Amino acid sequence: MHEIRNHQVFIDGCGTDEIAEKYGTPVLVVSVDDINDRICQLKNQFLDRHADVRAAYAGKAFLPSAICTVIEKAGLCLDVVSQGELITALKAGFPPERIEFNGNNKSLEEIQLAVRENIGRIILDGMDELELIEAACSLENKIANVLIRISPGVDSHTHQFITTGNVDSKFGIPLHGGMLDLTFGKVHSSKWVNLLGFHCHIGSQLHDNGPYLQAVSVIMDIVADYYKKYEFVTQELNIGGGFGIRYTDDDDAKPYSYFMDPVMDCLESCCAKIGIPRPTIVVEPGRSIVANAGTTIYTVGAIKEISGVRKYVSVDGGMTDNIRTALYGSKYECHLNSSEKCHETVTICGKCCESGDIVVWDTSLPTAKRGDHLLVFGTGAYCQPMSSNYNKIPMIPVVFTSRGKDRLVVRRQTYDELLERELSDDGAIEMA
Amino acid sequence: MHEIRNHQVFIDGCGTDEIAEKYGTPVLVVSVDDINDRICQLKNQFLDRHADVRAAYAGKAFLPSAICTVIEKAGLCLDVVSQGELITALKAGFPPERIEFNGNNKSLEEIQLAVRENIGRIILDGMDELELIEAACSLENKIANVLIRISPGVDSHTHQFITTGNVDSKFGIPLHGGMLDLTFGKVHSSKWVNLLGFHCHIGSQLHDNGPYLQAVSVIMDIVADYYKKYEFVTQELNIGGGFGIRYTDDDDAKPYSYFMDPVMDCLESCCAKIGIPRPTIVVEPGRSIVANAGTTIYTVGAIKEISGVRKYVSVDGGMTDNIRTALYGSKYECHLNSSEKCHETVTICGKCCESGDIVVWDTSLPTAKRGDHLLVFGTGAYCQPMSSNYNKIPMIPVVFTSRGKDRLVVRRQTYDELLERELSDDGAIEMA
Repeated sequence: MHEIRNHQVFIDGCGTDEIAEKYGTPVLVVSVDDINDRICQLKNQFLDRHADVRAAYAGKAFLPSAICTVIEKAGLCLDVVSQGELITALKAGFPPERIEFNGNNKSLEEIQLAVRENIGRIILDGMDELELIEAACSLENKIANVLIRISPGVDSHTHQFITTGNVDSKFGIPLHGGMLDLTFGKVHSSKWVNLLGFHCHIGSQLHDNGPYLQAVSVIMDIVADYYKKYEFVTQELNIGGGFGIRYTDDDDAKPYSYFMDPVMDCLESCCAKIGIPRPTIVVEPGRSIVANAGTTIYTVGAIKEISGVRKYVSVDGGMTDNIRTALYGSKYECHLNSSEKCHETVTICGKCCESGDIVVWDTSLPTAKRGDHLLVFGTGAYCQPMSSNYNKIPMIPVVFTSRGKDRLVVRRQTYDELLERELSDDGAIEMA
Repeated sequence: MHEIRNHQVFIDGCGTDEIAEKYGTPVLVVSVDDINDRICQLKNQFLDRHADVRAAYAGKAFLPSAICTVIEKAGLCLDVVSQGELITALKAGFPPERIEFNGNNKSLEEIQLAVRENIGRIILDGMDELELIEAACSLENKIANVLIRISPGVDSHTHQFITTGNVDSKFGIPLHGGMLDLTFGKVHSSKWVNLLGFHCHIGSQLHDNGPYLQAVSVIMDIVADYYKKYEFVTQELNIGGGFGIRYTDDDDAKPYSYFMDPVMDCLESCCAKIGIPRPTIVVEPGRSIVANAGTTIYTVGAIKEISGVRKYVSVDGGMTDNIRTALYGSKYECHLNSSEKCHETVTICGKCCESGDIVVWDTSLPTAKRGDHLLVFGTGAYCQPMSSNYNKIPMIPVVFTSRGKDRLVVRRQTYDELLERELSDDGAIEMA
């Protein structure tokens, strides 16, 4: 929840200059009020309008321990994709039965932890994962709830790195080649597995509901097929996430209802046609819950004007805390806490020793000077989780804000922590 | 130093299957014998063939504490680009006078540490950095040795992210617009600075000596100019790094002599023409020292064949330990420790929940099966330094090998370490 008062951005009523002074920069500020507002939208537009629907927050977008509490209190489920995310959630006291586990290459150790802790769902990503699930269940003497992830072969027209549902994907089971039949047969008959239904995810940052409808139509054909062939009644259908958000004016962000209303209509009519009750529908929003809640505050450092070419405004972070610009060509809006008016186009670069270390290309700013606070908006998703220690730059802190209060939820990394895993070479390996 | 015995890769005489068993996977194995061999090449082809030349290893390529010892023993200097790298080097006992400090946005705190610790050189990247250097020197009552970094406006025909010497660069002082004259004047007359000369760096992974010669010619014009105008005798010239290496057969890697022989000839003749002694020449190799020394060992997990489209072989790491494929489109060679012959084209993907998490596209392998050890070569530079905890995957260990011995130099991150900076939300920030 942003507002500008006296040229300074306030987030949930907290002044960003004050936050910068208090916690140092760079710092990622995450508005809990904004997150809760998005969750309210999700409820109003989807969860509260239908029976038998759920939303599992996709933790890979942003999963410090503290967010687990926010998600838990809001009543959402949680989608994790690794042992580390699962441990984070369990340590934060997230109810295991509300956790689902995705991933294209889960290890036996990961699956065993999930089974031991009685997590709600395992999303089986490929046929050979069944052996691991059976081994884990056998070791723990438990039965696992499973959905089969399908690769629906739908082109979602997004960045190729975040497209996951097309034919050429490392995720899910392809529709052609007979693999799905084989997998379904084995999973359905496994004594260690309670098969609930199917999962698909077509990609990220989508602005068009067309691909969702295509994917649902593909999946419903499968639902119908297995009902006809094996009398298998799909109890649960997870259609993933990917709801696009607004980073800049170029993004035409749509409400959840834009995506989910036609999807639910389609599902209802398909089920009526097949003659089965509509399964529970699960969605996995991640970015749409947290991205716009995040704002990175930097301090301006060196400024370099290459006359007639470009003006570079350097900040004290960069690709170490936000690699999305370099990795995906992502675009962001920013703001300088300054009483001057925007009047020039500059490029915001980081402090890494690499030309690709750019935060925002060609953005309009007032004249920046060393020490000013520069804010980059929309950094709540996929920035902190992808952060690195490149150039041995410490990882930045995360501060939550809500209704006028701020609270540190991830400390800045110290140099001692940065070096804690490094052992000295005591000379056992000598020079050749 | 790799060899294949009985289908298994041995690095410095150490079996990679044994290393994988001992330290777990993924693990980055770095051959100290290979590093020392590269340094010997650098000495034979450049350092030992000229008086008054130095090489400063570019630590940003790979700088665990233990490498400092290797570099120090080999007699090289060290180029650092941040407080974290400087602290690493100092803690490892690297002689401060052999350290130089680069970076486009150094903070006062960083410069003050450098001045306090009497490091050898500060590479001044822009005019406004002078104020910080003067402030730091004044606080510490010391004089700093400084080179002025110039942006020579040379196009180095490499990936745009790693091109640094062209006109549109966040690094160095542009030649046009009068900024260099202004900076030179101020630095030259500063009582806190001992100006030694100039620095430039044209880019990374270069395979052509043309851009080096162009850059040297540009810099020598400046040297001549300031000698004529101010009788300033350049004592030191740092021409950066960027020496290209072989990742795959597509790379036409050249010996150091290919780059440095014509450069030295050009420098000698320019200096003779100007009538000044040739300055000390410094180079900053990073990648060329360590990249080929590194091999990442993964364990094969899920395997997915999409008939007629692609076969994905998943490994237990990915973009978390090597983001270069996703970020730069980098190419790598790999090897499966297997008695079978290469007979199919597969894509090696990681375990991150992201389609872009690919390690090697379309490579020829024997039939891989779960549990096999897959090796990716040439991962010694810019992989470990850029590693992240995306998907909350722990950072991987580094093992040094030399003459039949192996030694852990960076421990694998534990889940406790992964979560140590995260504070729980005790409810002070409630749901709206």
